Amino acid sequence: MEKTKIAIIGLGTVGTGVAKLLLDHGDRTARHAGRIPWLEKVVVQNLSKPRDVAIPDGVLTDNLNAVLQNPEITVVAQLIGGLEPARTIMLQLLDAGKDIITANKALLAVHGPELFDKARQLGRCIAFEASVAGGIPIITNIGQCLTANQITSLRGILNGTCNFIITQMQEHSTDYEKVVKEAQRLGYAEADPTLDVNGADTAQKLSILSQLAFGVRGNWEDIPCKGIDDLDIADIGYADRLGYRIKLLAMAKLVDNEVEMSVSPTLIKKGSPLAEVQNAFNAIRVLGDAVGPVFYHGQGAGQMPTASAVVADIIDTVVGRSQITFNNLELWSENNRPRSMADAGPSINRYYLRMQVIDQPGVMAEITGILGNNGVSIASIIQHKSENQNTNATVPLVIMSHNTTQTAITNSVMQFEQSENIETKAVVLKVL
Amino acid sequence: MEKTKIAIIGLGTVGTGVAKLLLDHGDRTARHAGRIPWLEKVVVQNLSKPRDVAIPDGVLTDNLNAVLQNPEITVVAQLIGGLEPARTIMLQLLDAGKDIITANKALLAVHGPELFDKARQLGRCIAFEASVAGGIPIITNIGQCLTANQITSLRGILNGTCNFIITQMQEHSTDYEKVVKEAQRLGYAEADPTLDVNGADTAQKLSILSQLAFGVRGNWEDIPCKGIDDLDIADIGYADRLGYRIKLLAMAKLVDNEVEMSVSPTLIKKGSPLAEVQNAFNAIRVLGDAVGPVFYHGQGAGQMPTASAVVADIIDTVVGRSQITFNNLELWSENNRPRSMADAGPSINRYYLRMQVIDQPGVMAEITGILGNNGVSIASIIQHKSENQNTNATVPLVIMSHNTTQTAITNSVMQFEQSENIETKAVVLKVL
Repeated sequence: MEKTKIAIIGLGTVGTGVAKLLLDHGDRTARHAGRIPWLEKVVVQNLSKPRDVAIPDGVLTDNLNAVLQNPEITVVAQLIGGLEPARTIMLQLLDAGKDIITANKALLAVHGPELFDKARQLGRCIAFEASVAGGIPIITNIGQCLTANQITSLRGILNGTCNFIITQMQEHSTDYEKVVKEAQRLGYAEADPTLDVNGADTAQKLSILSQLAFGVRGNWEDIPCKGIDDLDIADIGYADRLGYRIKLLAMAKLVDNEVEMSVSPTLIKKGSPLAEVQNAFNAIRVLGDAVGPVFYHGQGAGQMPTASAVVADIIDTVVGRSQITFNNLELWSENNRPRSMADAGPSINRYYLRMQVIDQPGVMAEITGILGNNGVSIASIIQHKSENQNTNATVPLVIMSHNTTQTAITNSVMQFEQSENIETKAVVLKVL
Repeated sequence: MEKTKIAIIGLGTVGTGVAKLLLDHGDRTARHAGRIPWLEKVVVQNLSKPRDVAIPDGVLTDNLNAVLQNPEITVVAQLIGGLEPARTIMLQLLDAGKDIITANKALLAVHGPELFDKARQLGRCIAFEASVAGGIPIITNIGQCLTANQITSLRGILNGTCNFIITQMQEHSTDYEKVVKEAQRLGYAEADPTLDVNGADTAQKLSILSQLAFGVRGNWEDIPCKGIDDLDIADIGYADRLGYRIKLLAMAKLVDNEVEMSVSPTLIKKGSPLAEVQNAFNAIRVLGDAVGPVFYHGQGAGQMPTASAVVADIIDTVVGRSQITFNNLELWSENNRPRSMADAGPSINRYYLRMQVIDQPGVMAEITGILGNNGVSIASIIQHKSENQNTNATVPLVIMSHNTTQTAITNSVMQFEQSENIETKAVVLKVL
């Protein structure tokens, strides 16, 4: 059986998993590729670091040129995270005539246009299944399996760290800070979890999916994005009483040929598939105009699920499917009829509002009056009775709105801030 | 933009949907294919039958030769159901040099080896995404996206008619006969629903998935198969009380390099994703040794979901991905390391048993004695008190076993049949 020589750049968690699959299951990959995807080189920074996988003699190197200058290596899994040197290495690999597989979503979200243009110019391809939702093959599903459809809506839980934290807050009624510490101890959160919990990681993944599904032009940093880092256990409790769970939800929706996009903690009706996604799992609901809703659920991160996606891309590239898909998708290309990101203001959603208000007659009338003047119609209100006899005691007030615009909610909240009867800035969450 | 000329054979529900997508959304399919999938001919039996789609002049024909003898038509969607003339037409199309897309699972389950061998000999390909689970792209997911894995288990709800019937029985506490009539009225069940409700349709789909995931050799009729046609509303009720839902579940599991397969009404714990699949939806849970569990949920039938799958296959065939996949999958080929179907006897499962027993002392001891002698250990028992003072009154007895072999259960049930205290043949259902 013939060989296609492969290299891996970076032997971190994912790189190690990919090396394991290629080395331990060569028969399997060969059977699916019709030839042997042969691990020729693994490039690392530090040759003497202990490794979780036994790399054969002569394969490990700290010299990128061993890959760049070897024309027999045609397929490279570039598994270094972050923007640099990952970007420079990608450009060097393309210049050297390699087809590339990557799991680096930040790199694609930021430098996708440059990298994809360069690959197209040079007749090379970039496969990136592992960049979004780990083991869920969502890139191939949108880019290949659902091509008969205009996708009209995407909703996803795309960050396992956030979903783990929220699930644990919910299950143990423990507040954010404590759960994050526990998540760090268990390895579900990084020492610095900022990019996970502030929603940036989710927004980058959403920008890749939206490019694929809608041809959205735009910077991921322009996606309206709110993380879970100020999520209050009280809101998880109120949501529960109202029949909802809170999830960090990425949404993109086609409206009048523009695409509304957002990342935010969102109330989702209990019992619906997205609401029931637990712990570090990811899930995505795709709505197509022919197929209707398709729902995907699986492990969004971790060594072997992510390696599964990388190796599927390696096989696709070895057999030639990746090249066909890459050429036809025209991602981040002007030919791909780019669509704009819609302004968030007119976007229609239901909302959950919570604020701490002075417990006295007239306050409710003031609040409902402000909402009414802004055209926000109210679906339900929960007001707790104060247990305090003090006339200036405050109580939490929870309001669920009917469908309304983001502008109407933003204006209402600004007016709430003028009121002496409302003590805290209102918590505002979307409701699915 | 260049054209690839396409033909459709059969303008039933699915064929009509495919024609709509190709005719109404030609820009979309062209964008994903990099060329125009051009609908050149549609072959029907009856030219004068009214149609739901406006077919352009000169396209509709009742002469198959208009396709067979036109070398410019290279891709054909063969959308006739049943075994003949579908099989003969497939062979003629292959001989005429066409690549074929089909949605006909019965044809593949029965004549897959012949058709695939012939296609391989002639250098042609057959794509069949629409043959299993309609809009859920499970064929591409197993055959392409999860190729880094050894799949170790498949569980699926693959027949929307059965799932609709069971969901309605559950929700309205209505018995089987009434619900089937309602399902027929709503178009969810055929006038003769036999092949759906007796499990044959599910077994055929399972045989295709198992060929793909495990390389199983074997006749679909050898899959142990029990339908829902004698499902009793009483068992849905008891399952509910025990915390389960009953679903018609297709299962295939790799055990010692053989594959245990079955189709049967199965108790699934409420809250688990498969248990919550409602009405005509399908769902599949795939377990891979690298990726872990991946769960898919979507519309398993209907005009546009199935057409979505057919048109994705048309695009894959026009761009050349189908050919690559077909060549590498080696389905129903001796090269694909065929695995055998395992004997059902030693397979391990939990079981639900219900029987009508005489309400008198000693009966419980007899039944638990029989189970104990056969090595079946009991997880729980529900015995209703009789409301009848008659000494020969009978009461239902429901038993949940721990893990045990099918042989042990079968032997127990045979011994129950000898007992004068047990009035009815025991209902035996698997528990997931």
